[in-house]
Amino acid sequence: MSELAGPVEVVGAGLLGTSVGLACRRAGLEVLLSDVKPSHVRTASGLGAGRPRRPQDRPQLVVVAVPPDHLAEAIVAALEGSDAVVTDVGSVKGAPLAEVTEAVTPEALARYVGSHPMAGSERSGPLAASAALFDGRPWAVTPHAGASPEAVELVDELARVCGAVAVRLDPADHDLAVARISHVPHLAAVLVAAQLAKAPADHLALSGQGVRDVTRIAASDPGLWQQIVGANADAVLGLLAQVRADLDALIDAIDGAHHGDATALGAVLARGVAGTAAIPGKHGGPVRPMASVFVSVPDHPGELARLFGDAGQAGVNIEDVHIDHDPGRPVGLTELVVAEEHTERLLAALESRGWTTHR
Amino acid sequence: MSELAGPVEVVGAGLLGTSVGLACRRAGLEVLLSDVKPSHVRTASGLGAGRPRRPQDRPQLVVVAVPPDHLAEAIVAALEGSDAVVTDVGSVKGAPLAEVTEAVTPEALARYVGSHPMAGSERSGPLAASAALFDGRPWAVTPHAGASPEAVELVDELARVCGAVAVRLDPADHDLAVARISHVPHLAAVLVAAQLAKAPADHLALSGQGVRDVTRIAASDPGLWQQIVGANADAVLGLLAQVRADLDALIDAIDGAHHGDATALGAVLARGVAGTAAIPGKHGGPVRPMASVFVSVPDHPGELARLFGDAGQAGVNIEDVHIDHDPGRPVGLTELVVAEEHTERLLAALESRGWTTHR
Repeated sequence: MSELAGPVEVVGAGLLGTSVGLACRRAGLEVLLSDVKPSHVRTASGLGAGRPRRPQDRPQLVVVAVPPDHLAEAIVAALEGSDAVVTDVGSVKGAPLAEVTEAVTPEALARYVGSHPMAGSERSGPLAASAALFDGRPWAVTPHAGASPEAVELVDELARVCGAVAVRLDPADHDLAVARISHVPHLAAVLVAAQLAKAPADHLALSGQGVRDVTRIAASDPGLWQQIVGANADAVLGLLAQVRADLDALIDAIDGAHHGDATALGAVLARGVAGTAAIPGKHGGPVRPMASVFVSVPDHPGELARLFGDAGQAGVNIEDVHIDHDPGRPVGLTELVVAEEHTERLLAALESRGWTTHR
Repeated sequence: MSELAGPVEVVGAGLLGTSVGLACRRAGLEVLLSDVKPSHVRTASGLGAGRPRRPQDRPQLVVVAVPPDHLAEAIVAALEGSDAVVTDVGSVKGAPLAEVTEAVTPEALARYVGSHPMAGSERSGPLAASAALFDGRPWAVTPHAGASPEAVELVDELARVCGAVAVRLDPADHDLAVARISHVPHLAAVLVAAQLAKAPADHLALSGQGVRDVTRIAASDPGLWQQIVGANADAVLGLLAQVRADLDALIDAIDGAHHGDATALGAVLARGVAGTAAIPGKHGGPVRPMASVFVSVPDHPGELARLFGDAGQAGVNIEDVHIDHDPGRPVGLTELVVAEEHTERLLAALESRGWTTHR
């Protein structure tokens, strides 16, 4: 079996690369850093993510963490510049693999295994990095048919060392998966947000939590997303063609409902409910029935602490939280999501401590 | 000026009607309840939302809170059954107004002023009601051209008594606004979720917070949404035609990016960013720059309380919270959203208390 003993070289000391470096250092591995920007290497090594790579270094594993547009070229350089196993952390796997396959020998290609940690941030650069970035996150490991089993195991091991959960997927399958659970949702959020950009202020004043949730991710860096979507164009276009057909069917269904037959509209809405139920539950386990408790919380420091303190004393675990942005006054409506069977206990505990609640 | 002195009659003792009753009782007003289901009236009056209406009662204001498909008929019955001012709390204003206008005299019509509190819940029925449901929420008041000024003022006053912020809009304008900030985002969430319903489990295992946020509202009651969208078909279809044109343009733009020209794709993504920035900030004020701090939190009761306690002691107000559902282990990644200028202070305070954080 392959043991990750180091050194690990990180090419590209941005958010992801520096976080990989920090996580590997946390596990006691030697980390070598390189970046086209010397300032990134200085910042990352200052943060304790490793030391600058020297020409005579012999890494066991190279992790390529450069922007999507430069991935293939950096992977090829890493394969040709050493005999190490090489992986990358890019969000698309098929397109760079095709380029790398054309550029290197089958022997070199056997040392390459792509991967993709499902972690990120709206921020970028080494200063945003953290050893904890990957803790508990899925990390897709995507071997091609010619990858050596030892190389695949070593990349699995990297995911584990970083605190993540390795999920094995074929590269094409990975690209379809991220198109579905990340790229297409992102583009849908962009389309909805684009409608808001044209809206008058008194329309936007009616905005609630729903539209904020739907559009939140559309605020992410357009330059990065342009590269991601461009690199995964085939999978994204295939799904968008389905979305377009579904949208046409939805338009017909609404027209039908307008003329008295709402059956088709009801069926579309029911498919949406089924889709939300298909997302796996917390901790990958089965979906438990959840319920929401709403609490009015004065909007100043300490009040949320008091609320969570009171909830904690009732022995109820808060599974999720949403804070509704209050348009008119300094009180926030806070939604606490808890297992359904704990609702009554939580309500009773909060009310007995003077909170204004409702379900 | 019109003063709301009561009695207020509530027709339909579900979630919204019972909440209106509770809020009016909180303000000391007499409340009369009616519902086609006698059990709803018993439950609502048991909760303190008012007493059953008697034939000889003379309400000053009738609030119609029945499902969308029965709105117009209930408004007409209220106008013909008393000389009270009549409002409703339905989510669509144009279609019922047109039906009511056909059915009653101009004198009766002058007493009708539609309205729409922007509050609700994934739950329904009187047991889910609360006097606090409308606290701080926008409440659209939508007078038609023939409405009497006194009636309009009385409905404004109802919104205030319920703790909401009255927002005056023309009925057609209201329907366009909710199509944009509620119905179309809802349908976009449904289309994205419908794609997930077809996905294999190992694709869904990669799901992160983004797709959960985008699809959350698609889980709402399809029967209710079928009625809402059907009643607002014109405004929704107009916007969906724009979304369809935008989707076609997006598909072309991705195809362009795939063939080397990403300019158009970049422009679409930038419009999405602009749209998210157009949503008004918390408390209706200008949007302040926010930043996120991520903290690893053990997943058992009391840990979130300790986290918020530590944040509160640093004097930092938490503006929003997201808890990332962790696929592999009992630790949640919690995102605290705070004013950008407080980020460093919060990070320092949490780290000094032993929390694992990153930005």
